[in-house]
Amino acid sequence: MDIASFIGVFGGLSIVFFGAFMGGSFGGLIHLPSMLITGGGSFLCLFLTYPLSYVIGLFKVISKVFRTADFKEKETVQKLVALSEKSRRTGLLALEEEIQDFEDDFLRTGLRNVIDGIDGAQIRISMENELNQMEARHNTWISVVNAWATLAPGFGMLGTVMGLIGMLLNLEDKSSLGPNMSTALVTTFYGSLMQNWLLVPISSKLMYQNALEVKSKEMIIEGILGIQSGDHPRILAQRLLTYLNPVDRKELEAELIRE
Amino acid sequence: MDIASFIGVFGGLSIVFFGAFMGGSFGGLIHLPSMLITGGGSFLCLFLTYPLSYVIGLFKVISKVFRTADFKEKETVQKLVALSEKSRRTGLLALEEEIQDFEDDFLRTGLRNVIDGIDGAQIRISMENELNQMEARHNTWISVVNAWATLAPGFGMLGTVMGLIGMLLNLEDKSSLGPNMSTALVTTFYGSLMQNWLLVPISSKLMYQNALEVKSKEMIIEGILGIQSGDHPRILAQRLLTYLNPVDRKELEAELIRE
Amino acid sequence: MDIASFIGVFGGLSIVFFGAFMGGSFGGLIHLPSMLITGGGSFLCLFLTYPLSYVIGLFKVISKVFRTADFKEKETVQKLVALSEKSRRTGLLALEEEIQDFEDDFLRTGLRNVIDGIDGAQIRISMENELNQMEARHNTWISVVNAWATLAPGFGMLGTVMGLIGMLLNLEDKSSLGPNMSTALVTTFYGSLMQNWLLVPISSKLMYQNALEVKSKEMIIEGILGIQSGDHPRILAQRLLTYLNPVDRKELEAELIRE
Amino acid sequence: MDIASFIGVFGGLSIVFFGAFMGGSFGGLIHLPSMLITGGGSFLCLFLTYPLSYVIGLFKVISKVFRTADFKEKETVQKLVALSEKSRRTGLLALEEEIQDFEDDFLRTGLRNVIDGIDGAQIRISMENELNQMEARHNTWISVVNAWATLAPGFGMLGTVMGLIGMLLNLEDKSSLGPNMSTALVTTFYGSLMQNWLLVPISSKLMYQNALEVKSKEMIIEGILGIQSGDHPRILAQRLLTYLNPVDRKELEAELIRE
Amino acid sequence: MDIASFIGVFGGLSIVFFGAFMGGSFGGLIHLPSMLITGGGSFLCLFLTYPLSYVIGLFKVISKVFRTADFKEKETVQKLVALSEKSRRTGLLALEEEIQDFEDDFLRTGLRNVIDGIDGAQIRISMENELNQMEARHNTWISVVNAWATLAPGFGMLGTVMGLIGMLLNLEDKSSLGPNMSTALVTTFYGSLMQNWLLVPISSKLMYQNALEVKSKEMIIEGILGIQSGDHPRILAQRLLTYLNPVDRKELEAELIRE
Repeated sequence: MDIASFIGVFGGLSIVFFGAFMGGSFGGLIHLPSMLITGGGSFLCLFLTYPLSYVIGLFKVISKVFRTADFKEKETVQKLVALSEKSRRTGLLALEEEIQDFEDDFLRTGLRNVIDGIDGAQIRISMENELNQMEARHNTWISVVNAWATLAPGFGMLGTVMGLIGMLLNLEDKSSLGPNMSTALVTTFYGSLMQNWLLVPISSKLMYQNALEVKSKEMIIEGILGIQSGDHPRILAQRLLTYLNPVDRKELEAELIRE
Repeated sequence: MDIASFIGVFGGLSIVFFGAFMGGSFGGLIHLPSMLITGGGSFLCLFLTYPLSYVIGLFKVISKVFRTADFKEKETVQKLVALSEKSRRTGLLALEEEIQDFEDDFLRTGLRNVIDGIDGAQIRISMENELNQMEARHNTWISVVNAWATLAPGFGMLGTVMGLIGMLLNLEDKSSLGPNMSTALVTTFYGSLMQNWLLVPISSKLMYQNALEVKSKEMIIEGILGIQSGDHPRILAQRLLTYLNPVDRKELEAELIRE
Repeated sequence: MDIASFIGVFGGLSIVFFGAFMGGSFGGLIHLPSMLITGGGSFLCLFLTYPLSYVIGLFKVISKVFRTADFKEKETVQKLVALSEKSRRTGLLALEEEIQDFEDDFLRTGLRNVIDGIDGAQIRISMENELNQMEARHNTWISVVNAWATLAPGFGMLGTVMGLIGMLLNLEDKSSLGPNMSTALVTTFYGSLMQNWLLVPISSKLMYQNALEVKSKEMIIEGILGIQSGDHPRILAQRLLTYLNPVDRKELEAELIRE
Repeated sequence: MDIASFIGVFGGLSIVFFGAFMGGSFGGLIHLPSMLITGGGSFLCLFLTYPLSYVIGLFKVISKVFRTADFKEKETVQKLVALSEKSRRTGLLALEEEIQDFEDDFLRTGLRNVIDGIDGAQIRISMENELNQMEARHNTWISVVNAWATLAPGFGMLGTVMGLIGMLLNLEDKSSLGPNMSTALVTTFYGSLMQNWLLVPISSKLMYQNALEVKSKEMIIEGILGIQSGDHPRILAQRLLTYLNPVDRKELEAELIRE
Repeated sequence: MDIASFIGVFGGLSIVFFGAFMGGSFGGLIHLPSMLITGGGSFLCLFLTYPLSYVIGLFKVISKVFRTADFKEKETVQKLVALSEKSRRTGLLALEEEIQDFEDDFLRTGLRNVIDGIDGAQIRISMENELNQMEARHNTWISVVNAWATLAPGFGMLGTVMGLIGMLLNLEDKSSLGPNMSTALVTTFYGSLMQNWLLVPISSKLMYQNALEVKSKEMIIEGILGIQSGDHPRILAQRLLTYLNPVDRKELEAELIRE
C-alpha cells in the first residue's frame, strides 16, 4: 500500500475542507448538478477520446497509484549474479532447475531462451520488443488520465459560462445574483480541483511507476545477456548495480563486489 | 460501429442540456448567429490553413471515429505463422496460391515480393516507406482537426470581444445589459464546447486509431521478413505475439507456442 | 492560384462583418489608432526579433499561400522511371541529352552528377545537404510568421491594459466609461483576429507547402540514386510511388507497374 | 555558498515587501490560512504525485541551490593530462599509486578499471550507464520541484474560487465585500509568488547544476578512454579543453599545449 | 550595427507612446515603484535561477543583438576552395604560410591540425566538440533571457494582485478607486511590455545569430575535412555552396564552379 498516495488524497481533501470553512463557502461547495456537469461531462467525453475498454478499465488503472510499486530490483540483481556464477561453474544448462519457481515471467522467459541456446541478438530483440509494447500500453493509459485532466477544467469552464449566461438572463432579481454567480463558479472549482488534486498527480505517479518498471526490465535484459555471453560475475554485478538507487547500491556493492 | 464514440457524443450533449436546464440558461444557449461566428468562422479559416482537398474531406475523416478500428492482428499472426510453417516445409513458392485471396493490400504485396525473390533489405525499405507515407497522411488529417480545435475557442473569444464592444457602446440601456452580455458569452460557450466536447476527443481517437494501424503494419513487416529469412515458426510466433494486447496474446500463446 | 486561401481570408472577414453587424458593434470595431498599436507595434518588434532582410521579405513569403503549391510529383516519377529504363538500355551517358530542358534545378544538377560519374554516397550527401539548407530557410521564414502570431495578441493585450489605465484615471465621467472601455477592448480584438484569422493559418499553410516540397525532393534523391545503382525500373517505380498521394499512385501504378 | 541564490531569495522578498508597502496592502498579504491552503495543499498533493522518499527528501535537494556547484573541471583536466603523460612514460600500471587519494569516486573507479586492463568499450558502457542513472535521479528530483511549481498556482486559484464563492453567498453585507475579496485574492498571490519567486528559479538552477555535473563527468569519460588508448597528451589536452569555459580554457591552454 | 534591432526597440517604444497619448493614460504609465517591482523583482529572481556570472554578464550578451552578426561565410568558402586547389597542386604542407594571418581561431586551428597530419576522424571529433560546447554556452545565455521573459509578466501579475488587495482593503474611498486600480494594472503593463517588446524578440535574435554561427562553423568543418581528404576543388565548392544563402550562392557558383 502506497501511504504517500493516501496522504496526498486525504491531505488535499482536508485542505479544501479547511479552506471552505475559513472562507465561509462550505454550503456552496457541495452542489451535485455541478459535480455531474464537470465530472460526468468530462468522463463521458473520454468515450469519444478512447476505445470502450480503456475508459471502462480506467478506474482499475487509477487504483494502482495506491499500491506500492516494488519491482524487487535488489533481489533481481542478487539472483542474476548468482545465476551468472553458477553458469560459469557448471554451464548454462544447469540454470534449468533454478528458474522453475521464478515468479517474474519476463525474467523466466528470457532465461529459458538463454538455456535453449537461442542467439543473443535474437533474445535482445524479442525482450526489447516486449518491453516496448508494455511501455506503449502504459503510456496509453497515462494519456487517458491526461485527457481527463485536460477535459475536467474545460467542462468546469463550460459549466461556469452556462451559469453566467443563465444569470445574465435574470439580472433583474438582484437578491439571486450572488447565489447564481456562486453556483456558476462551483463548476470551475470542481474542474480545477479534479485537475490539480487528483488527475495530474495520478498521471505523474503512473508515469513514475512506469519508469521504474522499464528500468527494472532493462536491467533484467542486461543481466540475461551478460549471463549468456559469460561475463565475469564481478563485471556483471558492477554493470547491474548502476541501475539501483544509491542506498541499495552501496549495500549490494559490499556484498557482491568487494567481498 | 464504435459505441464508445456515440456514448461520448450524446453523453456530452446530454450533460450540456442538463446543465442548461439546471442553470436556467436554456433559451440563451441556442443562438444561431453565434454558432455561425464560432463554428463557421473557425471552419472557414481552415481553408487558409490547409489545401482545399483536406478541408473538404475533413468530415469523411471525422466520421471514422464512429467506426470500430479493427486491424485483425490476431488473424494476421495466425496467417503469418501458418505461412511460415508452410514455406519451411514446401518452399517460398508454395505461398503463391495462399495469398491470392488476402484482402490486405499491404500484406499481399509484401508476400508477393518475398515470393518474387526480392532482397530482404529492399522489401523492408519499400514497406517502411509505404508505412511512413501512410502515417504522414494520417498525421496531416489529425493536424487539420487540431487546427480546428485551436481556432474554435479563438473565434469564440473573438465573438465575445465583439459582443462586449457592442454592449459597451450601448451602456445607457440598463435593461438590455444582461441579455447583451449573455449573448456575448455564448460564442465563448460554443468555442469551448467544440474544443472540449468534439474536436480534441476526435483528434485523440484518430491518433489512437493511427497508432493501432501503424503497429499492425509493423507486425506485418516483421512477419514477412521472418518468413523470408526462414525463421523457425515458434520463434516467429513469439516475436509477433509481443505486438498483441495481453488478452489476444495469452490465447494465441496457448495455440501457437505451447502446443 | 490557391482558391482555398482566398476562401479562408474572405470567409473569415465576412464572418467578422456578420458578427459586428449582429452585435451592433460595427462602428466600434474600426479604430485606426488601435490598428496601429496592435498591427504596427507587433510588426515593428519583428525587427528586433529577426534581421532586416527577413522582415522586409516577409510579405513576399506570405503571398506564397495564395499560390497553389504544385511540385509535379507525378510527372517527376514518370520522368525518373523513363530515365531509368533508358539508362539500363543505352547507358547513363545517354541521359545527357534528355536532361537539357529539365526545369527543375535540383533534379537536373543531381542527374548531371550521375552522368559525370560522381560517387553515389557523395551525390546523396550533396543533395541532402541542399535539401536541409532549403528546409532551414523555409523554417526561418515560418518562425518569423509564428513570432508575429505570438506578438500580435501580446500587443493587443498591451493596448487594452493601456486603455484600461487611461479609463480608470477618468472614472468620474460616467458617460464616457462604456466607449472608453470599448476602445480598450478593440486592440484585444485586433490581436486575436490577426492571430486566429491570418497568422496562425498562414504559418500552417507555409509549413504544409514546405513538407510537400521536402517530400518531392526526397523522392527525387531516391530516384536519382536508384538510376545510378541501376535498379530495375519496376522496383524503382514501386519505391517512388510510395511518395505519391493515393489517387496519383493508383493511376501511375496501372501505367508503370502492371503494364 | 552560492551568493547569487541568496541575492535571488532575499531580493525577491524585499521587492514584495516594497510593493506591499507602496500598494498599502501590507496587512492583507499576511494571511496564515491562505498560506496553508496554497503552500500546504500543493505540497500535500506532491505525495500523490511522487513516492514518499522523494517528497520527504525534497527540502534537502532544494537546499543544494544555496551551495556553489563546483565540479573542479580545471583540476580534473590537469590530473588527466598528467596521468596521460605518466602512463605513456611508465605504463598504465604506474597509475596505481597516483589514484589512491582521488576523492572523486567516478574518476577513481574508471581509472582502476583501466589499470585492471578491462576493455575500453566495456568501461565506456559502464561509465555512461552510471552517468545516465545519475542524470535520471537528478531529473526526477527536478520534476518534483516542477510539479510543485505547477500545483502551487493551481491551489492558489482553487483558494480564490473558494473565497469568491463564499463572498458571493454573503453579498448583502456590502462592508465586508472588499476584505472578503481581498482575502480570496491572497491565495492567488501566494501561488504566483511560490511559482515565480521560488520554485521555477530553483528548478532552473538544479537543471543548470545537473548539466554542469553531466558535462564534467562526460569529460572524465573522454579523458579516461584517451589515457587507455594511449593518446598523445597534447591531443588529449586539446580535446578535454573544449569542455571548459573560455576563461579556464585560455589559462590551461598556455600551460598544457603551448608550453 | 544591426539597424533592424534599433528599429525594433524604438519603433516599439514609439507605439507605446502613441498608444498612451491616444488612450489618455500618459501620466499613469510612468510609475517608478511599479517598474522596480516588475523589472527589479524579475531580475533579482534571475540570481536564484542562474549563477552569478551569467546574471552579471547578461547585459553584455543582450547588447550583441545591436551588432550585425556577420560570419563571412562567402569569404570563407573562397578561402577554403583556394586552399583546396593549392594543397592539391603543392601538397598540404604548403598551406602553412597561408594560414598565418587567418583571424578565425576555429578555422586556423583546424587547418593547423590538418597540416600536422592528425587523423581526419580525430579532427572532426575535436572540432565538433568545440562547436557543441560553443552552442551549449550560447543556449545557456539564451535560456537566461527566456527565464527573464517568463518571470517579467509573472512579477507584473504579482504586482497587480498586490495592488488589487490594497485597493480592496480601502474600498470605502470611492474617489481613489480608479487611480488605485490603474496603479495596480501598471505592473501588468510593464511585465507584458518587457516580455513582448524586449525579451522574447531579443531571445529570438540571439537564437538566430547562434544558428548562423553554428552553420558557418559546420561549413568550416566540412571544408577542412574536404581539403584533408583531397576532394576535387569543384566538388568541394559545390558542397560548401549549399551552406550559403541563395544570393551569395549564385554569385560564387559563377566564380567557383562554372568558370
